[in-house]
Amino acid sequence: MSAPKNPPPKRADFRAFESIQTRWHDNDVYQHVNNVTYYAFFDTAVNKILVDRGVLKIADSPIVGLVVETQCKYFSPIAFPDLVHVGVCTRHIGSSSVRYEIGIFRNEDQLASAVGHFVHVYVDRRSQRPAPIPEPIRQVLTDLYRADSW
Amino acid sequence: MSAPKNPPPKRADFRAFESIQTRWHDNDVYQHVNNVTYYAFFDTAVNKILVDRGVLKIADSPIVGLVVETQCKYFSPIAFPDLVHVGVCTRHIGSSSVRYEIGIFRNEDQLASAVGHFVHVYVDRRSQRPAPIPEPIRQVLTDLYRADSW
Amino acid sequence: MSAPKNPPPKRADFRAFESIQTRWHDNDVYQHVNNVTYYAFFDTAVNKILVDRGVLKIADSPIVGLVVETQCKYFSPIAFPDLVHVGVCTRHIGSSSVRYEIGIFRNEDQLASAVGHFVHVYVDRRSQRPAPIPEPIRQVLTDLYRADSW
Amino acid sequence: MSAPKNPPPKRADFRAFESIQTRWHDNDVYQHVNNVTYYAFFDTAVNKILVDRGVLKIADSPIVGLVVETQCKYFSPIAFPDLVHVGVCTRHIGSSSVRYEIGIFRNEDQLASAVGHFVHVYVDRRSQRPAPIPEPIRQVLTDLYRADSW
Repeated sequence: MSAPKNPPPKRADFRAFESIQTRWHDNDVYQHVNNVTYYAFFDTAVNKILVDRGVLKIADSPIVGLVVETQCKYFSPIAFPDLVHVGVCTRHIGSSSVRYEIGIFRNEDQLASAVGHFVHVYVDRRSQRPAPIPEPIRQVLTDLYRADSW
Repeated sequence: MSAPKNPPPKRADFRAFESIQTRWHDNDVYQHVNNVTYYAFFDTAVNKILVDRGVLKIADSPIVGLVVETQCKYFSPIAFPDLVHVGVCTRHIGSSSVRYEIGIFRNEDQLASAVGHFVHVYVDRRSQRPAPIPEPIRQVLTDLYRADSW
Repeated sequence: MSAPKNPPPKRADFRAFESIQTRWHDNDVYQHVNNVTYYAFFDTAVNKILVDRGVLKIADSPIVGLVVETQCKYFSPIAFPDLVHVGVCTRHIGSSSVRYEIGIFRNEDQLASAVGHFVHVYVDRRSQRPAPIPEPIRQVLTDLYRADSW
Repeated sequence: MSAPKNPPPKRADFRAFESIQTRWHDNDVYQHVNNVTYYAFFDTAVNKILVDRGVLKIADSPIVGLVVETQCKYFSPIAFPDLVHVGVCTRHIGSSSVRYEIGIFRNEDQLASAVGHFVHVYVDRRSQRPAPIPEPIRQVLTDLYRADSW
């Protein structure tokens, strides 16, 4: 119930990074990036990695990841015009699901400003029924794997 | 790691409701409300209750709630132009923090499409240091309290 | 270049209305609904009318409207938790395009807080080439027509 | 009413550039960046230039720009994960207002995907009454000035 007690993770705890420019309206009336926006950073980084590595065709892939659970813990504020660096690794890879761990780093900070997770269940795009993770995607997820917890 | 196993909560599990019209661009390319948007529903419902009950002045309140943790589990999709009903209750009320439990209901559905939580730590707006929850806010939080878990 | 000189339109200047609850993060650091968000109100109202009247199937319609031009003039601020009422009419209906005029009304206000327009060109969804407006859509657009300018 | 006829501007038509990473949910169900999001690019680029050049303190500036009119014409689509480059110049600089012209460029494209304008009226932050543009801001606006139209 109180603020998170573990120290925030550091950059070396993640396997891939994506940089995202904050936008004017990421800030809310309290003058920091709104809590909701962090999840847009999660979604963007994970999907950009999958697209850039050639295993997600947004328009065409017959099997896609649906988000079934997300979580974020906020340690310290970020504000426009900061540049955000999103660290990504995978922690659990099942037959049809994967759990990503994600750290949000502000500018040159070495400790995360926020940390969260993001669970994808792979489904057939038409039927929306669970499907095994396609092999090329599994390869990317395995490359991003990191067993250790921070 | 797999999809959530508990049945989704029902409307009677919450103490207050706010209705929010979905918007065209709440849907993403998969044609359902994007996972990020659910947190905008959380933020909106909680803050609207506080404003409407007279205990949050967005421009002036010297002690305000900062979000330190949020989570959402997604059971079934919602899509524009659905109307969303956000159920809210409080589960833990500490000296300077509160945990809200939130259910997202689609149109006339009686079982939640998603469920989550949202933890506010009250801080002095200038110093950003934790502060006791002001008494009028505590009264509202107590009115919203529900001990039972679903 | 200066602020708009014509008086804002009133509710009777529009033919259909949609109500949209503002959200916490529609406000920006200046504590009013951000200028960008007004266009989300435009998009939502126009598409909701088309969906509700049965002439737009988001997933399936073979001919859909692409936005080629939008504009907004801002007269007076709106802020969360205001309720927004979006007035809509059509002004020009061509063979493959339509211009909507839109007024944004705050709570019970009778004069618009903002006014804008929104031009759809109808295209074949696959080829993205212009296509004649389908007859059922044209019927709805004609019902919304209003020749007079305010 | 038809699609814009003038050819889109090119990069040399602008005086300053800001790069913005598109996000997953910038795309809408039609699989391109939604028309609303372009205005977030406008807002972000203009304000980032002002902050980076030291003439806008988001929390403190006593005189700030309020948006009174925006417009955008859309020539060709952009889609996540494209990188957007926002070209900015000023066209009219009055005593208390300024009109920015803005071009949105996709990845390495040399012709704009969209073009728009954005009018700021400077106001006293407390009274919200128009105020002369402060001299340091005027200097930046003059540096960005470009008389020619495309």
